[in-house]
Amino acid sequence: MRAARRAPRRLRRVTTLPGDAGTAVRSAVPAAAAGHRVPVVGMVGAGQLARMSCQAAIGLGIGFRVLAADPADSAAQVCADTRIGDYRSGEDLQAFAAGCDVVTFDHEHVPGGQLAALERAGVAIRPGSRALRLTQDKRAMREWLTGLGISCPPFAPVVTGAEITGFAAAHGWPVVLKAVSGGYDGRGVWVCDTAGAAEVVLARAARGGLELIAEQHVAFRQELAAVVARSPAGQGAAYPIASTVQRDGICHEVLAPAPGLPPGRRAEAQRLALAIAAELGVTGLLAVELFDTPGGLLVNELAMRPHNSAHWTIEGSVTSQFEQHLRAVLDLPLGAPGLAARHAVMVNILGGDDPDTHARLIHVMAADPGVKVHLYGKAVRPGRKVGHVTVVGDDITQLRDRARRAAGYLSRGTEEP
Amino acid sequence: MRAARRAPRRLRRVTTLPGDAGTAVRSAVPAAAAGHRVPVVGMVGAGQLARMSCQAAIGLGIGFRVLAADPADSAAQVCADTRIGDYRSGEDLQAFAAGCDVVTFDHEHVPGGQLAALERAGVAIRPGSRALRLTQDKRAMREWLTGLGISCPPFAPVVTGAEITGFAAAHGWPVVLKAVSGGYDGRGVWVCDTAGAAEVVLARAARGGLELIAEQHVAFRQELAAVVARSPAGQGAAYPIASTVQRDGICHEVLAPAPGLPPGRRAEAQRLALAIAAELGVTGLLAVELFDTPGGLLVNELAMRPHNSAHWTIEGSVTSQFEQHLRAVLDLPLGAPGLAARHAVMVNILGGDDPDTHARLIHVMAADPGVKVHLYGKAVRPGRKVGHVTVVGDDITQLRDRARRAAGYLSRGTEEP
Repeated sequence: MRAARRAPRRLRRVTTLPGDAGTAVRSAVPAAAAGHRVPVVGMVGAGQLARMSCQAAIGLGIGFRVLAADPADSAAQVCADTRIGDYRSGEDLQAFAAGCDVVTFDHEHVPGGQLAALERAGVAIRPGSRALRLTQDKRAMREWLTGLGISCPPFAPVVTGAEITGFAAAHGWPVVLKAVSGGYDGRGVWVCDTAGAAEVVLARAARGGLELIAEQHVAFRQELAAVVARSPAGQGAAYPIASTVQRDGICHEVLAPAPGLPPGRRAEAQRLALAIAAELGVTGLLAVELFDTPGGLLVNELAMRPHNSAHWTIEGSVTSQFEQHLRAVLDLPLGAPGLAARHAVMVNILGGDDPDTHARLIHVMAADPGVKVHLYGKAVRPGRKVGHVTVVGDDITQLRDRARRAAGYLSRGTEEP
Repeated sequence: MRAARRAPRRLRRVTTLPGDAGTAVRSAVPAAAAGHRVPVVGMVGAGQLARMSCQAAIGLGIGFRVLAADPADSAAQVCADTRIGDYRSGEDLQAFAAGCDVVTFDHEHVPGGQLAALERAGVAIRPGSRALRLTQDKRAMREWLTGLGISCPPFAPVVTGAEITGFAAAHGWPVVLKAVSGGYDGRGVWVCDTAGAAEVVLARAARGGLELIAEQHVAFRQELAAVVARSPAGQGAAYPIASTVQRDGICHEVLAPAPGLPPGRRAEAQRLALAIAAELGVTGLLAVELFDTPGGLLVNELAMRPHNSAHWTIEGSVTSQFEQHLRAVLDLPLGAPGLAARHAVMVNILGGDDPDTHARLIHVMAADPGVKVHLYGKAVRPGRKVGHVTVVGDDITQLRDRARRAAGYLSRGTEEP
């Protein structure tokens, strides 16, 4: 409550009846205005990406709906407009899409046939099925990139042990074997040092009906993430290039901007990601995982959604990747992707053997009042991403230390490698 | 999806069956862990303060429930655990509180008797009823502050015209008349230039059964907001002092930190707010609205909840006021309240005569990709707060310009004073 102080308004205010102002003003606009429609974004999948997108949607004042498998899913716990259904079911997807202005995705597992069916039914899916197909088929993705003259690590489809040893003869051991579809967070990826190890993977893949590709085990200087957004209008925005540190195939730590990366290489990575987004007609976010090698940049993976490598943008950029994705799929002008601090460090919180992550918050918050903790409401399972921490500031060494300490404590129980 | 690159883990990864990893890991922790309990904060009221608290609760991974009058309320639209009820009803409050670890408030209108009844029933209400009482009774608040030796503008209870002219004889015209209870955002406050104007207010107040106080119309240099948090453990944290600009009794613009405020005055304002919080045993946020006068600081109003004068903290501080309030009421260690940028400027978006605020987002976002827009999902009514914008950066003049332009455009249709 504040006192009215402006002289020109004094007399007018005195004519207001005590207690009447609210009523009088309320009648000036018809109640129907309360129902003024805002666009609704539907996100298929209810993991932490949908959960953090939900936070961003609240700020933008738009509608936000998730398709969850279970009411206990990370985003289902917090999203007021949660629908329960199966992302593989055409019927569930159609029902979910009804009333959404745009449908987008928290993962890449919706079958391609269902995506195409949604498009045929007139649903605006962003990104579109043509672009999403490449995130579901590692072989098609590599062939498409190679066709455009974009460098990837050398790869080849492999079915027999002879093909793998042939590949190794050309590109050396270890050989990386990857399932063509269905993998994530290190699943579906095997680093094989010997023909024997490769044979074990090959036999099991054959039993599981998995197609494989072999890929050269690249000697990289660092792994980079180039995250860009692109809107249907064609506007692009590139985040600063981040350096990502993987552990067991799972993103563990992200430093933004990537330390020690020469400006030319930074610009090249951004240009590359924007070019891929434009060539593919991506709408929404595109994360390009890159190997920075002495010979140049190699594309490792693509993801067309908010991405672990850009969680740092919540505190570290003017516009978080979650807000940016929503702006892009709604064809709103994109937000500034620049840094909000000199450096940002993000470290994932992995589940350990103690399920009570909340109980450990008190110590982390007391030890470092400046660390930002994000918990996803997920049941703790060893190695599962259950949250992340971010710290921003000037001294990268200190930030890294602080983020690791906080995440390490919250991950307590995890076996350290 | 990322490649596994760490040599020490190679062999172990090869022993993982394609497609099996998920299943194997899932069985390692019993399903009951999924239900591991996190604390639930219940907020009575579902306006924009509850809406923004909901965003913060999602990040902290805690449970968050709101008591809304209507499913269309600002926070009810977005909060997954919305209960509909009447904040004046003891039955509704008790039902709402069941299952909450802590109950807190988005406004100060819950009747004191109901607050006391909740406390007697063993509900942890934060802040407690003793502290909240002062936000409901401007006279009691002023008497309590004066009793502690804290300066307020001179005031007196008034019932007759003679008492008002007597007060004016001592303190000059204009005289500010304030309803002792029930006012907010300029309602219940009348600045009277003459005895005749005061008589009009007095007569209407008598008819409405309102008690009044008269208060000196203070010649201030600027209005300040000192926002602090205090936890049940007694920990306090003070945000930088902000300068607030009111228009028609409604907070219009906030600059943080307050420009031109000498460091001594800044520290004094913070100490004052922390002292009031401690004396009152406030748990959660306390916003102290102050007049900065040549003779010193005068306390104008108190609010014990997140406050419009600290919306800038979402982008401008390490810890937003909404997260801080949740941490405080849960007795978690408080977050760092320092600046995340050199300056932050917040300007409210007021409803105009065009209900479609969303349609104007596109222009604002295109014109200034760095402005942060927060929309509350509220129906537009002339003069109603429907959102706010914040910009942070180095040049206060430019920031103020940008924030005003963006908010002005989103408020289009509002009559400019």
